[in-house]
Amino acid sequence: MSGSCVRQLLLISSSKVHGYQYLEFVANDINVLLRKNNVSTILFIPYALKDYDSYLNTVQEPFAKIGYKVEGIHQSRDPINAVQKAEAIFIGGGNTFRLLKTLYDNELIDVIRKRVLNDGVPYLGSSAGTNVATRSIHTTNDMPITYPPTFDALKLVPFNINPHYVDPDPTSVHKGETRQERILQYLEMPHAGPVLGIREGSWLEIKGCKAMLRGVHMARLFVPGEEPKEYESGSDLSFLLDDKVCNCKNKNN
Amino acid sequence: MSGSCVRQLLLISSSKVHGYQYLEFVANDINVLLRKNNVSTILFIPYALKDYDSYLNTVQEPFAKIGYKVEGIHQSRDPINAVQKAEAIFIGGGNTFRLLKTLYDNELIDVIRKRVLNDGVPYLGSSAGTNVATRSIHTTNDMPITYPPTFDALKLVPFNINPHYVDPDPTSVHKGETRQERILQYLEMPHAGPVLGIREGSWLEIKGCKAMLRGVHMARLFVPGEEPKEYESGSDLSFLLDDKVCNCKNKNN
Repeated sequence: MSGSCVRQLLLISSSKVHGYQYLEFVANDINVLLRKNNVSTILFIPYALKDYDSYLNTVQEPFAKIGYKVEGIHQSRDPINAVQKAEAIFIGGGNTFRLLKTLYDNELIDVIRKRVLNDGVPYLGSSAGTNVATRSIHTTNDMPITYPPTFDALKLVPFNINPHYVDPDPTSVHKGETRQERILQYLEMPHAGPVLGIREGSWLEIKGCKAMLRGVHMARLFVPGEEPKEYESGSDLSFLLDDKVCNCKNKNN
Repeated sequence: MSGSCVRQLLLISSSKVHGYQYLEFVANDINVLLRKNNVSTILFIPYALKDYDSYLNTVQEPFAKIGYKVEGIHQSRDPINAVQKAEAIFIGGGNTFRLLKTLYDNELIDVIRKRVLNDGVPYLGSSAGTNVATRSIHTTNDMPITYPPTFDALKLVPFNINPHYVDPDPTSVHKGETRQERILQYLEMPHAGPVLGIREGSWLEIKGCKAMLRGVHMARLFVPGEEPKEYESGSDLSFLLDDKVCNCKNKNN
């Protein structure tokens, strides 16, 4: 790994947001990141859904609107080579377990990690694609429809994210756990670290050792042993980026 | 395994139901089952929550009201022996991943299975305790806070259950998957079988090769390749019990 921290990530809570087209609410930030890196073609990884071709079609149109070509990794005979040549990587949402298992099955974890952390290839993730970018998939909302070889994920950042974060509905009579209760159960585990709950319509922008909260909503941060805390959009969350992944020193809030 | 099918299960969607005390709505059926088997003490397995003693306290009071003593398996030095001597077993809700992992860590899967399927020891499960009674935990709603050695579960029945089943909220603007969408993603997997979605306040009563839906709500059955189908409380669902677990022949609906 190079001495400096060159990663460039947009970790988006969800591609679909009420009142917007697919990824529309974040299109400007995507465009700025890709232009800066002279990207013309994005490598799309559709493993979170069953029908890769249909998923690729869904994704191609919104990216074409802002001037980018999208190629599906499943169209390549050699997925590892496709990642090695990629100008930018986008992993979309669906089922996180299916996505992570397929990344392992195709031996893509190390090569994606190297491309993003060492070579600075822009990484876009939404929903499941955001979950797999983090430390582990321990805080996905998805159903465990298939068994991956581990819950460890790409580790592009050293903490966890809960995408589609939702507050409890005070009118609900349903007795299933709230999202906060589920995350607090995770924090009880000895292996747990910080979890950022990002609401639909917001995202985390990460450049090297800097992490900024973007979008229309606040995010809720859960840290073992501390009270959950809300952060406004525009907050600097770089303190979540310690030296476990890149060599970042900004440990304090 | 004995030639006949002697299992006796109550697989409850949730212990908590709006408007009722803990397990109150199903207390009569629990009482009938335990009386018939001359049970005086229930072995409680609290592994789905972190604080076993506190969980045991929660459970002891409602069972005391209907005349039963409850002992926690964590109070025994030898959990396997506790299962071997148990008059009845109750596994409560919480986090399904933590529960299943702890059952494997304590080498309890085979002994519980043998006690229930061979010896006819009554089994009560609610929520996570219902999930682990089935084929696998592939259709739990819980967050994967810890990594069990497999998603295979007790296999006391040859199908899956989704507890706390909920219908989509037509007023919601949240874009996370609905429960039905999540289950349909599971059905896309080659290893998937039938999934019964049981709403809060309902349960499945299983005696040998007979399965009846009980409680206040309909249940929704998902079968690969078929349209989801609703069943009224009181429906005979014995067709879900084929010869994979007990030697049941009632394969048709």
